[in-house]
Amino acid sequence: MNLKTVIPVALSCFLMFVSTALLSQPQNRAPIVSPTVGADNKVTFRLYAPQAKEVKLSAQFEKAPLAMTKDSTGVWSLTTSPVTPDIYPYNFVVDGIQVADPSNTNIFPNEGFQSSLVEIQGATPLVHAIQNVPHGVVSYRYYYDQELGSRPVVIYTPPGYDQDPSKKYPVLYLLHGTTDTEETWTKVGRANIILDNLIAQKKAVPMIIVMPYGRAYPKISKSSGSLRNWENLQEFKKDFMNNLIPFVERNYRVKGDNNSRAIAGFSGGGGTSLYFGLNNPNLFKWVVGFAPGMLKDEFSRNNAVAFANPTATNQNLKLFWIGVGKEDMLYPVITDYLKVLDDKKIKHEKFISGGGHTWMNCRLYLSTIAQKLFSY
Amino acid sequence: MNLKTVIPVALSCFLMFVSTALLSQPQNRAPIVSPTVGADNKVTFRLYAPQAKEVKLSAQFEKAPLAMTKDSTGVWSLTTSPVTPDIYPYNFVVDGIQVADPSNTNIFPNEGFQSSLVEIQGATPLVHAIQNVPHGVVSYRYYYDQELGSRPVVIYTPPGYDQDPSKKYPVLYLLHGTTDTEETWTKVGRANIILDNLIAQKKAVPMIIVMPYGRAYPKISKSSGSLRNWENLQEFKKDFMNNLIPFVERNYRVKGDNNSRAIAGFSGGGGTSLYFGLNNPNLFKWVVGFAPGMLKDEFSRNNAVAFANPTATNQNLKLFWIGVGKEDMLYPVITDYLKVLDDKKIKHEKFISGGGHTWMNCRLYLSTIAQKLFSY
Repeated sequence: MNLKTVIPVALSCFLMFVSTALLSQPQNRAPIVSPTVGADNKVTFRLYAPQAKEVKLSAQFEKAPLAMTKDSTGVWSLTTSPVTPDIYPYNFVVDGIQVADPSNTNIFPNEGFQSSLVEIQGATPLVHAIQNVPHGVVSYRYYYDQELGSRPVVIYTPPGYDQDPSKKYPVLYLLHGTTDTEETWTKVGRANIILDNLIAQKKAVPMIIVMPYGRAYPKISKSSGSLRNWENLQEFKKDFMNNLIPFVERNYRVKGDNNSRAIAGFSGGGGTSLYFGLNNPNLFKWVVGFAPGMLKDEFSRNNAVAFANPTATNQNLKLFWIGVGKEDMLYPVITDYLKVLDDKKIKHEKFISGGGHTWMNCRLYLSTIAQKLFSY
Repeated sequence: MNLKTVIPVALSCFLMFVSTALLSQPQNRAPIVSPTVGADNKVTFRLYAPQAKEVKLSAQFEKAPLAMTKDSTGVWSLTTSPVTPDIYPYNFVVDGIQVADPSNTNIFPNEGFQSSLVEIQGATPLVHAIQNVPHGVVSYRYYYDQELGSRPVVIYTPPGYDQDPSKKYPVLYLLHGTTDTEETWTKVGRANIILDNLIAQKKAVPMIIVMPYGRAYPKISKSSGSLRNWENLQEFKKDFMNNLIPFVERNYRVKGDNNSRAIAGFSGGGGTSLYFGLNNPNLFKWVVGFAPGMLKDEFSRNNAVAFANPTATNQNLKLFWIGVGKEDMLYPVITDYLKVLDDKKIKHEKFISGGGHTWMNCRLYLSTIAQKLFSY
């Protein structure tokens, strides 16, 4: 072997080494591409798993897992019926084990499961579609808490934020669901892209969005259940009030009054947003829950300030908004909560959508409330 | 059932629904916690897979996969021997299928495989350890190319960047390896944390780090092999020169001369950094390769400008640095390349480490060159 031969062989050995050590990719063939979306919105999923006996697709656009079929090279595949344009979580069930799609870098950030995301684009761009409009900046930062250590936070600043150093902005605090992370609202919820598009269309006021990590970990363990559990609420409240808000107001040009501060959240983070928002009228005039996590026997405790003085609450709040899907498991308890609000004559807007406890609904809800926030 | 009973049942159904639909987590028991690192630096890995026949741990601190054992509840586990402090990629091999750890959000961003990351901290903090020092900001942004569409880029600005609007900074362009993404240098390479720590210790000059996505996708498909393939180099060069550098210089306070601009990269991105750096002396006086991908029969073509005039090259470059591990599959070809540089009397620094083609070495190399860049 001369050198000209040796080097490609060495390189190919290197690639095989990587393949053997790390990749769920077949050796000696082109990498698997998955998923691919056809012009007809049919989606093809592929997985190389020659030893598997059964592979299914579990996707949130289907009610039940779909069987995939294996070809002679060990690649399992499936092409769906046309799928309604949106972004959906999915994974593969390989001999009973759920795995993310190893060919897809578009991953759902979550502490409890690993799913991949597939985007089916519409004939006209949806509100969460990345378009050639001015983009805001998504910043990954750390703030510090004496007890909890370095705390991650993701912060969106709108297009033009860096251009005019005299301009101040309102702030939306946006909380993820239980087992989600500080990245879920941008990577799954596309909060930044939704705002970019709505701001470009002059449908939303330019705002800063602050997306913290909602679990007071390590004090509250990652396996301790919902974010809206009382213990987490108390510990996260200390962090939120004493560290996060001051960090944001020190580092960003914010308006800083309660009319320029909103709080919203999904699921366990929605329970948190109502608890923080309704009990702190000096901080928030805009309070929003997306399928907020709650228990009926906690209504009185968690809504103490609002329930004690509905008139003052109505005078304070510019927006109190609750969205939930009819197929959401939380729909019954949230319906009960809405009745209590009616009984107490606490003003609120309700938004009852189709669908369940999903991030498809989160994007719908965010794109709805973003057009209201700070606009009146 | 009264309402007090119905609601917890509904919630628990909801959690079971999530569990069944999405989680690789057991129902009716606490979520799996994995990995956990003991005070003795032994690491315990856990995976719930009751149907699996064989589960192994494949981790980059071990030469070969290690067998895990199943308990009566379907949880496979393994506790290692003490592991040398560092951050390592790992995954589970479940009946021959490689999967990331579903209990770990610390994921290696990559288009070809899915691995998780485990961090074993040292008795004293390593250079990549997140500490309570002033932190820079990691910004996720998009720039636009007519042909390629919206292009993601991750940009680090050092601590204090927002404080003094008159201060200008040097820029390091830092390229990922083949199949990595624009997130790999921060999420696996900890480039931001390494710089935070070195700047806090006054061992590195505050600098901006620009981490683009190195594949000219969709023009160059994701399955087209190394980033340093000629076709990708040409397409990415257009994007890099015409879009990325102007975007950075328009949006950041950069010094903007070739003495204040560096380029470095790993593997396929290292091949790219040498090609861009050595052929554009007007742009770069600091050129760095971390186990740079190369082929011997491409030496002349890819180094045309430097080889044509070694004297001018030596006069221009403040630093030409190549690092590689002795166990790296690219060690032979890089050794050949270093000999050619010697023969042509092109000045360079070589750094021959232990280890292979790994991100453990990337962090070592980055923390080494960051102390040199822009310092003389």
